[in-house]
Amino acid sequence: MNDHNLQIAGFKAAAVKGGIRGKDRLDIALIFCEKPAVSAAVFTRSLVKAAPVLLDMERMQNGEAQAILINSGIANACTGEPGMVAARFTSSLAAKELGVAEDLVLISSTGVIGMQLDLSCFEKAIPELVASLSAHGFADVAQAIMTTDTVPKISKRQVKIGGQQVNLLGLAKGAGMIKPNMATMLCFIMTDLAVSAELLQQMLAAGVEKSFNAISVDGDTSTNDTVLLLASGFAGNQPLMAGSPEVSAFQVVLDDLMKDLALQIVRDGEGATKLITIRVSGALTEDEARLAAETVAESKLVKTAFFGEDANWGRIIAALGRSGASFNPDLVDISFDDVLMVENGLGQGKDAETLATKVLKQKEFAVNLDLKAGAASFVCYTCDLSIDYVKINADYRS
Amino acid sequence: MNDHNLQIAGFKAAAVKGGIRGKDRLDIALIFCEKPAVSAAVFTRSLVKAAPVLLDMERMQNGEAQAILINSGIANACTGEPGMVAARFTSSLAAKELGVAEDLVLISSTGVIGMQLDLSCFEKAIPELVASLSAHGFADVAQAIMTTDTVPKISKRQVKIGGQQVNLLGLAKGAGMIKPNMATMLCFIMTDLAVSAELLQQMLAAGVEKSFNAISVDGDTSTNDTVLLLASGFAGNQPLMAGSPEVSAFQVVLDDLMKDLALQIVRDGEGATKLITIRVSGALTEDEARLAAETVAESKLVKTAFFGEDANWGRIIAALGRSGASFNPDLVDISFDDVLMVENGLGQGKDAETLATKVLKQKEFAVNLDLKAGAASFVCYTCDLSIDYVKINADYRS
Repeated sequence: MNDHNLQIAGFKAAAVKGGIRGKDRLDIALIFCEKPAVSAAVFTRSLVKAAPVLLDMERMQNGEAQAILINSGIANACTGEPGMVAARFTSSLAAKELGVAEDLVLISSTGVIGMQLDLSCFEKAIPELVASLSAHGFADVAQAIMTTDTVPKISKRQVKIGGQQVNLLGLAKGAGMIKPNMATMLCFIMTDLAVSAELLQQMLAAGVEKSFNAISVDGDTSTNDTVLLLASGFAGNQPLMAGSPEVSAFQVVLDDLMKDLALQIVRDGEGATKLITIRVSGALTEDEARLAAETVAESKLVKTAFFGEDANWGRIIAALGRSGASFNPDLVDISFDDVLMVENGLGQGKDAETLATKVLKQKEFAVNLDLKAGAASFVCYTCDLSIDYVKINADYRS
Repeated sequence: MNDHNLQIAGFKAAAVKGGIRGKDRLDIALIFCEKPAVSAAVFTRSLVKAAPVLLDMERMQNGEAQAILINSGIANACTGEPGMVAARFTSSLAAKELGVAEDLVLISSTGVIGMQLDLSCFEKAIPELVASLSAHGFADVAQAIMTTDTVPKISKRQVKIGGQQVNLLGLAKGAGMIKPNMATMLCFIMTDLAVSAELLQQMLAAGVEKSFNAISVDGDTSTNDTVLLLASGFAGNQPLMAGSPEVSAFQVVLDDLMKDLALQIVRDGEGATKLITIRVSGALTEDEARLAAETVAESKLVKTAFFGEDANWGRIIAALGRSGASFNPDLVDISFDDVLMVENGLGQGKDAETLATKVLKQKEFAVNLDLKAGAASFVCYTCDLSIDYVKINADYRS
């Protein structure tokens, strides 16, 4: 990883071995903007929210942030009042060391649920972090936020806005909506765009629906899921305004960057050997299209069939049948990539199955489901359910 | 299995090696009542219903049936018009051979989705079946309907109604809401009770909610799920009437028999090593109690933790958080059997975890979840998600 390619104007970053996860593991990280950045955020929809999520929700009210303090190893979730005290304390340590207002410091944690943070780790780490902040620190941050991830997840994009080159840099971790004890999907996106907080929030929320909210490794949602987007304004463009035709230009690259990170997460899903695109068309409503796609994407039977490279369309149609989407089973078409397996509800026989089995041997393929009940569609992304998924999740704490 | 214990007045049964699943496997079965039996049925809620389900739904309109023809190996689901023709044809063969009206013959199939039945198997089997009908044939039927089941599932009960001893005999198959290719939960219950069709249907529907609709192996619902209850009236009781105090006496044993069969199914769940009771109390509404219990029961992360004998309550609270049930996370109590792991949302530390880990080493245990949001409760039953589950479902057709 060439650090020089991961710079973004206005931002610095650093990561240290803070001792939360043993001695030799980067586990506390800091992202800093030279001035308060226009900011947007999307958090877990779970009723059970970790302390850092609750604190960030409070601080994001004014759409501004200047730093993000992140730790892996402990999620600070289900930790009650002591957990909230720890969240406020660690953020105030960072604020003091950085010389910024406390409510401009966001925090994110990922790791074991139900354990309290060791505050002495942060007392030691934060001066080190601030001292080593650098424009080249983002690769280290991507490493430090990993838990059961096997690879760091980084994506960057560029786009012309108001004649200026605008840059985006995203870091993510996670191998599903939730990781076992090491919970959570986290994503931090930095851009040098000049923009209002309201518009930034709209664009982030729109993009999340088609990326991070359209992936599933195991169907579980974390207590800590967080996407933060900070905009420094250093690109020097005229601030992007709602209604401007350039909004969609930025939205396209933002969506693309988030989709890239989301797919990196699914590819690195726990035990995953395949990335599968589930494409539902012809649904009556968009809600039903999503319901149908997600039910197929999360079915244990469908996912084990993918692992077994078995073109078992019966499991797919059974999942559709219980999804709640309305359709006539005698009209459904199913194809694997461009191999039509089921037409008008009927299997297309041995030859189709032979071709489909070849499709399933690929690392990545698409399952296309046409319900022929309407005009709505939805695309989501999933992985297979492997023996290693069970091993990883059964053995994690032992 | 002593066949003589499995008699029930008015009913005969037989099973043969019909050649659907190779030469040496009982795979076509027949249950016959000496006179038209008052009958009740509950079918899959899936939008995708197999041909035998569609035919039975039509025939159960009048609440009477005299025979059930059953095959394993092929589900006759997603088979279109040819599948419906096959369903009618096989039932008419049985009706002719038995000398009863065609609309008194119900049929059930379980097996691979999307394949057509070989009608010649039935042409050969049905005369054999009718010739070998016997009061002692039920153990054979329980064998013949098995697919990936490792043991036959049989349950019997007795109850005094109107001074007469009334008997119930139930046979079931299935290792979840759906089995891989060999789909389906099927259950056939015979009783010699005298009763009206309307009351019988009410009692069956009530019992199913707390038994077969309260179990989950993998959260998938089959295209063929069927529970049939036939009452011969041979016990000689005054017909049981709605409003009679004896209705609840019969309901209790019917519920008990169905719960017994349902738990046999979960214990024999694909790859299952443990039977876990999920007991939610203190929910705001019964719907929310069910939602909370089922979300925990179906979570891949919770089920793999059970397989790993890991008292990982963080995964349970994370599942509750996304379930849609309303509660305050800071009030939740969680215990494994009688070991309190979480009180008011906070983990009870290492000692509790050590005790809880002992509970998890048992073959059967309960997880008690008190949401403290209301007075509603729900109990459901699940198994763990093991390496063998993935092996069975990935390798099934290969």
